[in-house]
Amino acid sequence: MAVSAQNAPSSDEELIRKLVHERVEGIRARDAERAMAGVAADVRSFDVVNPLQNAGAASARRRAEVWFSSFDGPIGVEVKDLHVAAAGGVGFSYAFQRYTGRKRDGGAIDMWVRTTVCYRKIDGAWKITHEHQSVPFDPETGRASLALAP
Amino acid sequence: MAVSAQNAPSSDEELIRKLVHERVEGIRARDAERAMAGVAADVRSFDVVNPLQNAGAASARRRAEVWFSSFDGPIGVEVKDLHVAAAGGVGFSYAFQRYTGRKRDGGAIDMWVRTTVCYRKIDGAWKITHEHQSVPFDPETGRASLALAP
Repeated sequence: MAVSAQNAPSSDEELIRKLVHERVEGIRARDAERAMAGVAADVRSFDVVNPLQNAGAASARRRAEVWFSSFDGPIGVEVKDLHVAAAGGVGFSYAFQRYTGRKRDGGAIDMWVRTTVCYRKIDGAWKITHEHQSVPFDPETGRASLALAP
Repeated sequence: MAVSAQNAPSSDEELIRKLVHERVEGIRARDAERAMAGVAADVRSFDVVNPLQNAGAASARRRAEVWFSSFDGPIGVEVKDLHVAAAGGVGFSYAFQRYTGRKRDGGAIDMWVRTTVCYRKIDGAWKITHEHQSVPFDPETGRASLALAP
Protein backbone atom coordinates (compact mmCIF):
# COMPACT_ATOMS: atom_id res chain seq x y z
CA MET A 1 0.00 0.00 0.00
CA ALA A 2 2.91 2.32 -0.71
CA VAL A 3 1.35 4.33 -3.54
CA SER A 4 1.44 7.96 -2.46
CA ALA A 5 -1.61 8.87 -4.54
CA GLN A 6 -3.57 6.54 -2.30
CA ASN A 7 -2.87 8.62 0.78
CA ALA A 8 -2.64 12.23 -0.35
CA PRO A 9 -5.47 13.68 -2.45
CA SER A 10 -4.12 15.06 -5.71
CA SER A 11 -5.50 18.19 -7.30
CA ASP A 12 -7.02 15.86 -9.89
CA GLU A 13 -8.93 14.11 -7.12
CA GLU A 14 -10.12 17.48 -5.88
CA LEU A 15 -11.29 18.39 -9.39
CA ILE A 16 -13.26 15.14 -9.60
CA ARG A 17 -14.85 15.75 -6.19
CA LYS A 18 -15.85 19.19 -7.45
CA LEU A 19 -17.39 17.60 -10.54
CA VAL A 20 -19.37 15.14 -8.38
CA HIS A 21 -20.74 18.01 -6.31
CA GLU A 22 -21.52 20.16 -9.36
CA ARG A 23 -23.61 17.30 -10.76
CA VAL A 24 -25.40 16.92 -7.42
CA GLU A 25 -26.25 20.65 -7.47
CA GLY A 26 -27.57 20.24 -11.02
CA ILE A 27 -29.81 17.34 -9.96
CA ARG A 28 -31.08 19.21 -6.88
CA ALA A 29 -32.06 22.14 -9.13
CA ARG A 30 -33.41 19.82 -11.85
CA ASP A 31 -31.04 21.65 -14.22
CA ALA A 32 -30.06 19.20 -16.98
CA GLU A 33 -27.49 21.61 -18.45
CA ARG A 34 -25.64 21.77 -15.15
CA ALA A 35 -26.08 18.09 -14.25
CA MET A 36 -24.69 17.01 -17.63
CA ALA A 37 -21.86 19.57 -17.99
CA GLY A 38 -19.18 17.02 -17.09
CA VAL A 39 -20.43 14.21 -19.32
CA ALA A 40 -18.34 13.17 -22.36
CA ALA A 41 -20.10 13.08 -25.73
CA ASP A 42 -19.55 9.32 -26.04
CA VAL A 43 -20.49 8.40 -22.45
CA ARG A 44 -21.82 4.90 -21.81
CA SER A 45 -24.30 4.75 -18.95
CA PHE A 46 -25.62 1.79 -16.99
CA ASP A 47 -28.70 3.25 -15.31
CA VAL A 48 -30.77 2.14 -12.29
CA VAL A 49 -33.73 1.32 -14.55
CA ASN A 50 -34.05 -0.29 -18.00
CA PRO A 51 -32.56 -0.52 -20.57
CA LEU A 52 -29.24 -2.33 -20.03
CA GLN A 53 -27.25 0.66 -21.29
CA ASN A 54 -27.55 4.15 -22.78
CA ALA A 55 -25.00 5.51 -25.22
CA GLY A 56 -24.08 9.16 -25.70
CA ALA A 57 -24.54 12.41 -23.81
CA ALA A 58 -27.70 13.37 -25.73
CA SER A 59 -29.44 10.18 -24.62
CA ALA A 60 -28.27 10.66 -21.01
CA ARG A 61 -29.54 14.21 -21.03
CA ARG A 62 -32.98 13.28 -22.38
CA ARG A 63 -33.31 10.66 -19.65
CA ALA A 64 -32.30 13.21 -17.01
CA GLU A 65 -34.87 15.69 -18.30
CA VAL A 66 -37.67 13.10 -18.20
CA TRP A 67 -36.64 12.05 -14.68
CA PHE A 68 -36.37 15.66 -13.45
CA SER A 69 -39.79 16.52 -14.86
CA SER A 70 -41.39 13.63 -12.93
CA PHE A 71 -40.70 15.52 -9.68
CA ASP A 72 -42.94 18.14 -8.09
CA GLY A 73 -40.33 20.49 -6.62
CA PRO A 74 -36.63 20.00 -5.95
CA ILE A 75 -34.84 16.65 -5.73
CA GLY A 76 -33.00 15.89 -2.51
CA VAL A 77 -29.56 14.32 -3.01
CA GLU A 78 -27.30 13.03 -0.25
CA VAL A 79 -23.83 11.63 -1.04
CA LYS A 80 -22.27 9.13 1.36
CA ASP A 81 -18.86 7.37 1.43
CA LEU A 82 -17.46 9.10 -1.65
CA HIS A 83 -14.17 7.52 -2.77
CA VAL A 84 -12.13 9.18 -5.52
CA ALA A 85 -8.92 8.15 -7.29
CA ALA A 86 -7.22 9.85 -10.25
CA ALA A 87 -3.82 9.76 -11.95
CA GLY A 88 -2.39 10.36 -15.39
CA GLY A 89 -5.71 11.26 -17.01
CA VAL A 90 -7.70 8.29 -15.66
CA GLY A 91 -10.01 8.51 -12.65
CA PHE A 92 -12.91 6.87 -10.88
CA SER A 93 -15.29 7.60 -8.03
CA TYR A 94 -17.88 5.61 -6.17
CA ALA A 95 -20.42 6.45 -3.49
CA PHE A 96 -23.94 5.93 -2.26
CA GLN A 97 -26.47 8.55 -3.33
CA ARG A 98 -29.84 9.05 -1.69
CA TYR A 99 -32.60 10.58 -3.82
CA THR A 100 -35.69 12.01 -2.15
CA GLY A 101 -38.64 14.11 -3.33
CA ARG A 102 -42.30 14.34 -4.23
CA LYS A 103 -43.37 12.99 -7.60
CA ARG A 104 -45.96 14.66 -9.86
CA ASP A 105 -48.06 11.50 -9.70
CA GLY A 106 -48.53 12.10 -5.95
CA GLY A 107 -46.02 9.52 -4.76
CA ALA A 108 -42.80 10.10 -2.89
CA ILE A 109 -39.34 8.75 -3.56
CA ASP A 110 -36.65 7.95 -0.99
CA MET A 111 -34.02 5.51 -2.18
CA TRP A 112 -30.28 4.83 -1.90
CA VAL A 113 -28.45 4.06 -5.13
CA ARG A 114 -24.90 2.72 -5.63
CA THR A 115 -22.96 4.87 -8.09
CA THR A 116 -19.61 4.26 -9.79
CA VAL A 117 -18.27 6.85 -12.25
CA CYS A 118 -15.25 6.62 -14.59
CA TYR A 119 -13.42 9.69 -15.88
CA ARG A 120 -10.88 10.62 -18.54
CA LYS A 121 -9.05 13.91 -18.80
CA ILE A 122 -9.94 15.18 -22.29
CA ASP A 123 -8.34 18.36 -23.63
CA GLY A 124 -7.36 19.29 -20.06
CA ALA A 125 -10.77 18.79 -18.43
CA TRP A 126 -12.11 15.77 -16.50
CA LYS A 127 -15.07 14.18 -18.27
CA ILE A 128 -17.39 11.33 -17.32
CA THR A 129 -16.92 8.57 -19.91
CA HIS A 130 -18.85 5.87 -18.03
CA GLU A 131 -21.39 5.79 -15.24
CA HIS A 132 -22.97 2.86 -13.42
CA GLN A 133 -25.90 3.41 -11.05
CA SER A 134 -27.93 0.58 -9.55
CA VAL A 135 -29.76 -1.02 -6.68
CA PRO A 136 -29.30 -4.73 -5.95
CA PHE A 137 -32.19 -7.18 -6.13
CA ASP A 138 -33.55 -9.81 -3.75
CA PRO A 139 -32.99 -13.23 -5.35
CA GLU A 140 -35.88 -14.71 -3.33
CA THR A 141 -38.47 -12.37 -4.86
CA GLY A 142 -36.80 -11.06 -8.04
CA ARG A 143 -37.64 -7.53 -6.92
CA ALA A 144 -35.32 -4.52 -6.92
CA SER A 145 -34.33 -3.53 -3.36
CA LEU A 146 -35.48 0.08 -3.05
CA ALA A 147 -35.48 0.35 0.74
CA LEU A 148 -31.89 -0.49 1.66
CA ALA A 149 -29.65 2.10 3.35
CA PRO A 150 -25.86 2.11 3.81
CA MET B 1 -10.02 13.79 -27.52
CA ALA B 2 -6.28 14.34 -27.79
CA VAL B 3 -5.19 12.07 -24.95
CA SER B 4 -2.88 9.46 -26.46
CA ALA B 5 -3.68 6.88 -23.77
CA GLN B 6 -7.24 6.93 -25.06
CA ASN B 7 -6.16 5.59 -28.44
CA ALA B 8 -3.17 3.36 -27.81
CA PRO B 9 -3.48 0.57 -25.26
CA SER B 10 -0.77 0.83 -22.61
CA SER B 11 0.90 -2.20 -21.12
CA ASP B 12 -1.06 -1.36 -17.98
CA GLU B 13 -4.27 -1.74 -19.96
CA GLU B 14 -3.04 -5.09 -21.22
CA LEU B 15 -2.30 -6.19 -17.64
CA ILE B 16 -5.84 -5.25 -16.59
CA ARG B 17 -7.34 -7.13 -19.56
CA LYS B 18 -5.30 -10.14 -18.46
CA LEU B 19 -6.68 -9.76 -14.92
CA VAL B 20 -10.27 -9.61 -16.26
CA HIS B 21 -9.72 -12.81 -18.22
CA GLU B 22 -7.98 -14.56 -15.31
CA ARG B 23 -11.03 -13.86 -13.14
CA VAL B 24 -13.32 -15.18 -15.88
CA GLU B 25 -11.30 -18.40 -16.01
CA GLY B 26 -11.59 -18.67 -12.22
CA ILE B 27 -15.39 -18.27 -12.39
CA ARG B 28 -15.71 -20.81 -15.21
CA ALA B 29 -13.76 -23.34 -13.13
CA ARG B 30 -15.64 -22.35 -9.92
CA ASP B 31 -12.17 -21.77 -8.42
CA ALA B 32 -12.53 -19.07 -5.75
CA GLU B 33 -8.76 -18.85 -5.22
CA ARG B 34 -8.20 -17.99 -8.88
CA ALA B 35 -11.27 -15.78 -9.25
CA MET B 36 -10.25 -13.70 -6.23
CA ALA B 37 -6.48 -13.52 -6.86
CA GLY B 38 -6.68 -9.92 -8.11
CA VAL B 39 -8.91 -8.57 -5.35
CA ALA B 40 -7.47 -6.05 -2.85
CA ALA B 41 -7.86 -6.86 0.85
CA ASP B 42 -10.03 -3.77 1.40
CA VAL B 43 -12.21 -4.15 -1.74
CA ARG B 44 -15.69 -2.65 -1.66
CA SER B 45 -18.19 -4.58 -3.78
CA PHE B 46 -21.62 -3.59 -5.04
CA ASP B 47 -23.09 -6.94 -6.06
CA VAL B 48 -26.01 -7.91 -8.33
CA VAL B 49 -28.01 -9.14 -5.34
CA ASN B 50 -28.51 -7.87 -1.78
CA PRO B 51 -27.02 -6.40 0.36
CA LEU B 52 -26.18 -2.86 -0.80
CA GLN B 53 -22.43 -3.48 -0.38
CA ASN B 54 -19.86 -6.01 0.78
CA ALA B 55 -16.58 -4.94 2.36
CA GLY B 56 -13.31 -6.85 2.19
CA ALA B 57 -11.81 -9.68 0.17
CA ALA B 58 -12.80 -12.38 2.71
CA SER B 59 -16.48 -11.42 2.37
CA ALA B 60 -16.24 -11.32 -1.43
CA ARG B 61 -14.63 -14.73 -1.47
CA ARG B 62 -17.26 -16.31 0.80
CA ARG B 63 -19.98 -14.97 -1.49
CA ALA B 64 -18.21 -16.35 -4.55
CA GLU B 65 -17.89 -19.78 -2.92
CA VAL B 66 -21.60 -19.88 -2.06
CA TRP B 67 -22.51 -18.77 -5.60
CA PHE B 68 -20.12 -21.28 -7.22
CA SER B 69 -21.51 -24.13 -5.11
CA SER B 70 -25.06 -23.38 -6.28
CA PHE B 71 -24.09 -24.57 -9.78
CA ASP B 72 -24.18 -28.16 -11.01
CA GLY B 73 -21.15 -28.18 -13.33
CA PRO B 74 -19.14 -25.33 -14.84
CA ILE B 75 -20.31 -21.72 -15.13
CA GLY B 76 -20.42 -20.23 -18.62
CA VAL B 77 -19.03 -16.69 -18.83
CA GLU B 78 -19.09 -14.47 -21.92
CA VAL B 79 -17.53 -10.99 -21.89
CA LYS B 80 -18.81 -8.35 -24.32
CA ASP B 81 -17.76 -4.75 -25.05
CA LEU B 82 -14.84 -4.68 -22.61
CA HIS B 83 -13.45 -1.15 -22.18
CA VAL B 84 -10.23 -0.63 -20.20
CA ALA B 85 -8.33 2.51 -19.18
CA ALA B 86 -5.28 2.80 -16.94
CA ALA B 87 -2.64 5.40 -16.14
CA GLY B 88 -0.38 6.33 -13.24
CA GLY B 89 -1.60 3.56 -10.94
CA VAL B 90 -5.35 4.12 -11.45
CA GLY B 91 -7.51 2.06 -13.79
CA PHE B 92 -11.03 1.01 -14.59
CA SER B 93 -12.84 -1.46 -16.83
CA TYR B 94 -16.43 -2.04 -17.78
CA ALA B 95 -18.22 -4.67 -19.83
CA PHE B 96 -21.26 -6.89 -20.09
CA GLN B 97 -20.88 -10.39 -18.70
CA ARG B 98 -23.22 -13.26 -19.48
CA TYR B 99 -23.50 -16.05 -16.91
CA THR B 100 -24.99 -19.39 -17.90
CA GLY B 101 -25.24 -22.81 -16.27
CA ARG B 102 -27.33 -25.41 -14.51
CA LYS B 103 -28.18 -24.86 -10.85
CA ARG B 104 -28.20 -27.60 -8.23
CA ASP B 105 -31.87 -26.83 -7.51
CA GLY B 106 -32.69 -27.97 -11.07
CA GLY B 107 -33.09 -24.50 -12.60
CA ALA B 108 -30.97 -22.88 -15.25
CA ILE B 109 -29.37 -19.44 -15.31
CA ASP B 110 -28.76 -17.28 -18.38
CA MET B 111 -28.38 -13.58 -17.62
CA TRP B 112 -26.39 -10.55 -18.74
CA VAL B 113 -24.88 -8.38 -16.01
CA ARG B 114 -23.30 -4.92 -16.27
CA THR B 115 -19.89 -4.84 -14.59
CA THR B 116 -17.63 -1.91 -13.73
CA VAL B 117 -14.32 -2.57 -11.95
CA CYS B 118 -11.87 -0.06 -10.43
CA TYR B 119 -8.18 -0.84 -9.95
CA ARG B 120 -5.16 0.55 -8.10
CA LYS B 121 -1.57 -0.49 -8.66
CA ILE B 122 -0.43 -1.63 -5.21
CA ASP B 123 3.20 -2.63 -4.65
CA GLY B 124 3.63 -3.00 -8.42
CA ALA B 125 0.56 -5.19 -9.09
CA TRP B 126 -2.91 -4.16 -10.30
CA LYS B 127 -5.57 -4.93 -7.70
CA ILE B 128 -9.35 -4.60 -7.73
CA THR B 129 -10.31 -2.06 -5.07
CA HIS B 130 -13.95 -1.67 -6.14
CA GLU B 131 -16.42 -3.68 -8.18
CA HIS B 132 -19.97 -2.88 -9.25
CA GLN B 133 -22.16 -5.54 -10.86
CA SER B 134 -25.87 -5.10 -11.51
CA VAL B 135 -28.92 -5.52 -13.66
CA PRO B 136 -31.37 -2.64 -14.10
CA PHE B 137 -34.99 -2.89 -12.95
CA ASP B 138 -38.31 -2.21 -14.64
CA PRO B 139 -39.92 0.79 -12.89
CA GLU B 140 -43.40 -0.39 -13.96
CA THR B 141 -43.13 -3.69 -12.10
CA GLY B 142 -40.32 -3.14 -9.59
CA ARG B 143 -38.72 -6.35 -10.82
CA ALA B 144 -35.05 -6.87 -11.71
CA SER B 145 -34.58 -7.26 -15.48
CA LEU B 146 -32.92 -10.65 -15.85
CA ALA B 147 -33.67 -11.25 -19.54
CA LEU B 148 -32.05 -8.23 -21.22
CA ALA B 149 -29.16 -8.69 -23.67
CA PRO B 150 -26.70 -6.11 -25.07
